[in-house]
Amino acid sequence: MVTISIIGFGNVARHLAAAFENNPSIELVDIYSRAVPADAGSFSAKIVTDITQLAPADVYIISVSDAAVPQLSSQLAFNGRFVVHTAGSLAMDAIDGKNRRGVFYPLQTFSKNKAVDFVEVPLCIEAENPSDLQLLESVSSSLSNSVYRIDSEQRRSLHVSAVFASNFANHMYKIGSDICAEYGIPFDILKPLIRETASKIGVLSPREAQTGPAIRRDSATISSHLDLLTDENQKAIYQLLTQSIQRERKEL
Amino acid sequence: MVTISIIGFGNVARHLAAAFENNPSIELVDIYSRAVPADAGSFSAKIVTDITQLAPADVYIISVSDAAVPQLSSQLAFNGRFVVHTAGSLAMDAIDGKNRRGVFYPLQTFSKNKAVDFVEVPLCIEAENPSDLQLLESVSSSLSNSVYRIDSEQRRSLHVSAVFASNFANHMYKIGSDICAEYGIPFDILKPLIRETASKIGVLSPREAQTGPAIRRDSATISSHLDLLTDENQKAIYQLLTQSIQRERKEL
Repeated sequence: MVTISIIGFGNVARHLAAAFENNPSIELVDIYSRAVPADAGSFSAKIVTDITQLAPADVYIISVSDAAVPQLSSQLAFNGRFVVHTAGSLAMDAIDGKNRRGVFYPLQTFSKNKAVDFVEVPLCIEAENPSDLQLLESVSSSLSNSVYRIDSEQRRSLHVSAVFASNFANHMYKIGSDICAEYGIPFDILKPLIRETASKIGVLSPREAQTGPAIRRDSATISSHLDLLTDENQKAIYQLLTQSIQRERKEL
Repeated sequence: MVTISIIGFGNVARHLAAAFENNPSIELVDIYSRAVPADAGSFSAKIVTDITQLAPADVYIISVSDAAVPQLSSQLAFNGRFVVHTAGSLAMDAIDGKNRRGVFYPLQTFSKNKAVDFVEVPLCIEAENPSDLQLLESVSSSLSNSVYRIDSEQRRSLHVSAVFASNFANHMYKIGSDICAEYGIPFDILKPLIRETASKIGVLSPREAQTGPAIRRDSATISSHLDLLTDENQKAIYQLLTQSIQRERKEL
C-alpha cells in the first residue's frame, strides 16, 4: 500500500483524488486545501487547511497552478520526503530542493462534470532518484496502461503539442458551434464529424487524414467561405490555418 | 428498391458506392468514371466511361470536385430526371436546370483506407420538388439515423463550420505531431487526449470544455511555449488562437 497526499484541490487534484480513492493499492491520506470546500464530504481523505500539518506519506502530489508550486513546496514543514508536481510545462526543479523531487504529469484534459477513466490516461513521470522513479512507476502503473518516462525538457514540448492537439482543437469546435448558432443549425449535426476526425488518428497520421478545401487547394470554396465569415477573428484564423495546411502540402 | 447511379469515382463517391452496395433497399446501377479504375472489380455496379451512356435510374448522384458539377450535369444526355450533388458549399442550382435538382450532402470526413459507418453520418438533403425530397429522405433514412433538411444557404455555413471543427482540428493534431517528432516523443502519447477532447463535446459545450493556458490566462506558460516554438508559422497560430480563446472568455 502506497500512501499519497494531494496538495491542492482544483480540477486536476479532484480527478486525481477520485482515481486514488478507487484504487485498492493506494491510500489517500490528506488533501490540502486553503479552505474546506463545500463538497469535501465526497472524499474520504482528511482535508487539511494548514500546509504545515500534513501527515507522513510516501508521495506528496502538488497539483496547483504552475505559479504556486515553488512557494507551496517551500512551505512544506518537512525535508527529504518525495514531492512531485503535476504540471506539463514546469521543470522538476520548480519544487523546493529540501525534498526529493519528481513529476507526475497526467496528459489529459480534465473538466468539471466529466469523469475521466485513468486507465486510458498517459502518465508522464520523472524523478531525481532512481528509487523514487520506481515508486512513481509502480503507482502510475496501478492507475494507467500508459506510463512514460519523460524528462523536463521533453515534457515542456509535449505540453505545447497538447495545447495544439487539445486546447486549440477544442477552440475549433467552439468556432464551428458559433457559426452553427449564427445560422440556426443545431450543433449536434457536427458531433459525428468531430468524433470521426479524432477517431481517424487511430489509423491514419494527421497528414494522411487531412481533408477539406485547403489541402485540395479548392480556391473557389475557400473564397466562398471567406465571403461568408463576417467575424474578423474567424476570418483571420481561417486564412492562417488554410495557408498553414497548404504549406504542409508543399513540403510533401 | 430505389435505383441509384453515381457520377464520379473519387473519395466520397467510393464511400457512397460501398454504402449503397451494402444496402438491401438500394440498387446501384452505374458508376461513371472517365477511365476504368484499377479497383473497379471491387464494386458490382457497372463502370461507365461515357457519361451519355448512363442507364435510367431514380437518382443520379454527382460526386466530383465542386468546379466540375455544372459542366458534368450539363453533359447528361437526359432531361427531367432527379440529379443531386454531394457538395457542402455548392448551391443546388449549380446543377443544370434541365433535370430535377437536389442535394445529398453527407457531413463527414472521408479518407482513403478508413471505412465509414453511414449509420452515424448526418445526411443533409434538399430538393426542388417535394416528391423528390421525400424520395431522398427515404433513401437517406435507409442509410443513416440522422437526416436533416438543410437549404443551400444553411449548407454553405454548415460547411464552413465543418472546416473549423474537422479540417482545422485535424491540422492542430498535425502540428502537435510535428512538435512531438521534433523532440523525439511518440505521437501515440497524444492520442488519448485527442479522443477525450472530442468525446467531451458529447456532454459539454465547447465553451464549457475549454481548458489550457489561454483560457486560464496563464501568461507564464504561454510565454514559455512561445519561447520553445521555433517555427514562425506555429508561433503565429499559437498567438492568434490564444488571443481568440481569451476573447471568447471576455464575452462570457
